[in-house]
Amino acid sequence: MPTITAIGFDADDTLWESEIYYVTTKKEFARLLSGYAPIEQIEAALEVTETHNVQIYGYGFKSFTLSMIETALQVSGGEVQARLIGDVLEMAKQVLQAEIKLLDGVEGVLHELSPLYSLFLITKGELFEQQRKIHKSGLRRFFHHTEVVPDKTPEAYMRLLRTQNIPPEQFLMVGNSLRSDILPVVTIQGWAVLVPHSLTWSHETTPGQELPDGRWFEIPRLSDLPNFLKRFGK
Amino acid sequence: MPTITAIGFDADDTLWESEIYYVTTKKEFARLLSGYAPIEQIEAALEVTETHNVQIYGYGFKSFTLSMIETALQVSGGEVQARLIGDVLEMAKQVLQAEIKLLDGVEGVLHELSPLYSLFLITKGELFEQQRKIHKSGLRRFFHHTEVVPDKTPEAYMRLLRTQNIPPEQFLMVGNSLRSDILPVVTIQGWAVLVPHSLTWSHETTPGQELPDGRWFEIPRLSDLPNFLKRFGK
Repeated sequence: MPTITAIGFDADDTLWESEIYYVTTKKEFARLLSGYAPIEQIEAALEVTETHNVQIYGYGFKSFTLSMIETALQVSGGEVQARLIGDVLEMAKQVLQAEIKLLDGVEGVLHELSPLYSLFLITKGELFEQQRKIHKSGLRRFFHHTEVVPDKTPEAYMRLLRTQNIPPEQFLMVGNSLRSDILPVVTIQGWAVLVPHSLTWSHETTPGQELPDGRWFEIPRLSDLPNFLKRFGK
Repeated sequence: MPTITAIGFDADDTLWESEIYYVTTKKEFARLLSGYAPIEQIEAALEVTETHNVQIYGYGFKSFTLSMIETALQVSGGEVQARLIGDVLEMAKQVLQAEIKLLDGVEGVLHELSPLYSLFLITKGELFEQQRKIHKSGLRRFFHHTEVVPDKTPEAYMRLLRTQNIPPEQFLMVGNSLRSDILPVVTIQGWAVLVPHSLTWSHETTPGQELPDGRWFEIPRLSDLPNFLKRFGK
């Protein structure tokens, strides 16, 4: 049985709600633009633009907002009323300043595990947005270290573990994304636990390549993690 | 005389051109909108919006782009033509994918100093944008460590130096911003060298509070740094 000494936690939709803001904003965006095109068409166009723009803009709500504006121009054939763009900017500012909603059981789990393991918060996305959430969440005290990475690649995990002197086989990552939290960690011979979230962007549920068996597990809720770890090793 | 063991380099407008993209884009933006208001008024409105939005959006070109769009709505009284918003998005994408232009003498200086000191690249702003520039610049090989911070506060420098086991009195920061590169480092009892850049955002040239004497210096060009260091200590 492996000895796990360090646990990494994803943040968005693992520790706190995130995708809900995208989903709600997308819905409202499509409603705002519904004078120009059918709602399904607007949603599909936004998905395409968003996925494409991730390569140019990176992740985060500001990127998403720029993609909404681009989509508004596109679905309206360049005729969108300026006040609707104003509404999009207004929605974005509200989300970027919203309160942080912790998921069920998060504080209890971190409280129980932080004396037993080195805990890391490892989140991808936009530095300013993520730092604000970490700060507002009140969770920093449970973590040995928090790290925002531009993308969760095997190299990004490897670099972090090397800096922190953690052998990959002693590291377990917990998160809701097969693509970002499970696959890259399994690839570098670490361990991973998937905690599904009912709202997960389709980009994240598809790992992008074949996922090897054996080094990752799934639990229904984060609050099951302490018991899982007891069975798993120590 | 102090013994300097580690040197931090700012990146934007210290190692490579950055502000020029903002200046050029601002000018083009004001020209695009000149049908709605006088150019000076547009530029002033953008400056106000940009400075205010830094608190909500953070730094970086995506934030700046959102501020341009907000300003376009504002100066046009909500009447701006959608195609002009499209032009703004297009400009943004070009800048976000532009080649990196290294400043004069940068490679030579880093090549000369990297065997003698631990070099750090310390840049503030948007993680994705900065990581792209670091990667594209080809300069990573000279640095012991590169770090993107959301803002260059005394605490941010302190945290980095602690993680890297560098006493502040052995650390010297090099950059073009009194506010970001000089004042916070002097505050934590480190040393700093200002290398002015002809284009520096006014937000950065005002340190925001009184700057103590004695722990910082100014040199005209980055290529003067090796000679300065020889006189300074070792």
